Amino acid sequence: MTRRPKEDRKRLLGGLDLGGTKIQAVVLDEHGTVLSQTRRATPQEGGPPAIVEALAAALQDVTQPLELEPSALTGVGVGAPGAVNAATGTLLQAGNLPGWSGPYALAEALTKRTQVPVYLGNDVQVAVAAEARLGAGRAYRSLLGVWWGTGVGGGILLDGQRWLGRGAAGEIGHTVVRRGGARCSCGRRGCLEAYAGRGAMERKARKALERGEKTRLFDTMAEEGKDRLTSGVWLKALKKGDPLAVKLIDRALRMLGAGIASAVNLLDVEAVILGGGLGTRLGQPYVDQLRVLMKPHLFVPQRPPDLHLAGLGELSGAIGAALLAEPAAEVLAPRGAPPA
Amino acid sequence: MTRRPKEDRKRLLGGLDLGGTKIQAVVLDEHGTVLSQTRRATPQEGGPPAIVEALAAALQDVTQPLELEPSALTGVGVGAPGAVNAATGTLLQAGNLPGWSGPYALAEALTKRTQVPVYLGNDVQVAVAAEARLGAGRAYRSLLGVWWGTGVGGGILLDGQRWLGRGAAGEIGHTVVRRGGARCSCGRRGCLEAYAGRGAMERKARKALERGEKTRLFDTMAEEGKDRLTSGVWLKALKKGDPLAVKLIDRALRMLGAGIASAVNLLDVEAVILGGGLGTRLGQPYVDQLRVLMKPHLFVPQRPPDLHLAGLGELSGAIGAALLAEPAAEVLAPRGAPPA
Repeated sequence: MTRRPKEDRKRLLGGLDLGGTKIQAVVLDEHGTVLSQTRRATPQEGGPPAIVEALAAALQDVTQPLELEPSALTGVGVGAPGAVNAATGTLLQAGNLPGWSGPYALAEALTKRTQVPVYLGNDVQVAVAAEARLGAGRAYRSLLGVWWGTGVGGGILLDGQRWLGRGAAGEIGHTVVRRGGARCSCGRRGCLEAYAGRGAMERKARKALERGEKTRLFDTMAEEGKDRLTSGVWLKALKKGDPLAVKLIDRALRMLGAGIASAVNLLDVEAVILGGGLGTRLGQPYVDQLRVLMKPHLFVPQRPPDLHLAGLGELSGAIGAALLAEPAAEVLAPRGAPPA
Repeated sequence: MTRRPKEDRKRLLGGLDLGGTKIQAVVLDEHGTVLSQTRRATPQEGGPPAIVEALAAALQDVTQPLELEPSALTGVGVGAPGAVNAATGTLLQAGNLPGWSGPYALAEALTKRTQVPVYLGNDVQVAVAAEARLGAGRAYRSLLGVWWGTGVGGGILLDGQRWLGRGAAGEIGHTVVRRGGARCSCGRRGCLEAYAGRGAMERKARKALERGEKTRLFDTMAEEGKDRLTSGVWLKALKKGDPLAVKLIDRALRMLGAGIASAVNLLDVEAVILGGGLGTRLGQPYVDQLRVLMKPHLFVPQRPPDLHLAGLGELSGAIGAALLAEPAAEVLAPRGAPPA
């Protein structure tokens, strides 16, 4: 990496993808190119103040290889899991963040700590925006992003613009695929996430194990040195043909097929982008299965939407977060242009 | 009605709401006011040519009280049940129209017959657009219209504009509320319409009757001189407390609650407008029930969308159809302005 002249630095954007277990940080230039990336653990104690410290430290880590201070960035975006008030930079609720309860003015706190303008968005919404702008969705004016991970999130692009509704649009994981069905972590019943979310699948797998069902899922978990069924553990178990893993992933895919097809029947978008930890880890063979499983539920089956795997991988969230800070920067490369 | 000067007539729009059993016609002035309305039966034989003749006759009927020929109208819009190519004026498929199979260039045929520019749209989409413009949705920039009748249709307004997707958006009736559930008339399983559509409910009621379940639904139908369970028959049976009617309408409302809440979780619109034959006939008490039944499925229950009954009643489809012809006319009253 050559040193960049000072005037160029002025247009660098920081992106922070805040997850329940890790913080992914990037620095993006004006072409949407990732100049630096780092990752650190999300503190499991200390609540919001500890998380703000960790975000500031992640910014320090990610700017350091560029020989910059965080304050040299034009702006920083944070993608956070939960309901967000983008206008005030407040994270309203965040069930997946340790020690988080009630609204917290995250953007203000991080701005105070780093002396950089901070913008806040929902993690999945910004990841989908990144895919639409720089990833698998670049060719489309309308798309639905489905982020398949611990939960099932989503984001919508219509007519080239993010559709946020009153701020909470895209919650495809909490569309009802079986009224009165499985209990969801949100407290409701029959949500798509209650069948397809990695968290829900792990709970289901543990119950099956207790009942004496045969599975190597938890042995695989132990072999990998994990304490939960990560996407990598699921993939390994699937590759070994573990019957429980196959059964639960099949069920998840069938429910995803119904839920995504329902959303397509409502929105008639050109494309669906599958991302998220589990989506990107399982990859193309499962995207192909999903395509087949959606079809029986499509109202216009002869004209299905295109279906793609997310193109930016696990950086989509951090890149999308950085794009939140665009208003603070000079204009990035126009939408649809490939990254340099 | 006073005779209007000739130059004013130039801005009159005709609207035709083409249904499976009847054609509703209106003439609309430049303020969106209905100057004339008539209704005639949809021919049950003769296929598309007979229907085009009936549409032309309906135009003759509705312009006659205004002492006008149809050719004096600036433009005519047709709302038709089924998939529509608005650009070519072709009705692609229309399962509910007698003798209709395959695409038919309806707009072209009716233009030839009447010498007026004809515009084609989907019946529910145009009805929702009319509600958004002149009815219960006037105060909102984003809304979901749910048309509860023989089937369950829908239409979406986002940021003040109709959202049509690739032409078929809004099919909330074919969102899956119970994967693997009841068989829908569309051939798929578990669609909202398979539980809440009047057609599906009638099939269910007939089966219950055959099984010996007690109901006065069909006696009421006979008393009303009908050969099917019309919205009026359902309402009468409900008022008498008929147990089967109550059971099936309750089930329909629960499924509507889940399906509409799912759509709201995805789109986060400001408002939901309930219309359609059954919706408008059952009226406010059932809208209030629906509000309660949606809530358990809303992802942000503390901020539900407003829920209203359609304000234009059974004319919404014909008024919306007339609005399709606006491009041919001078500009109508601006969106949001009350009808004169």
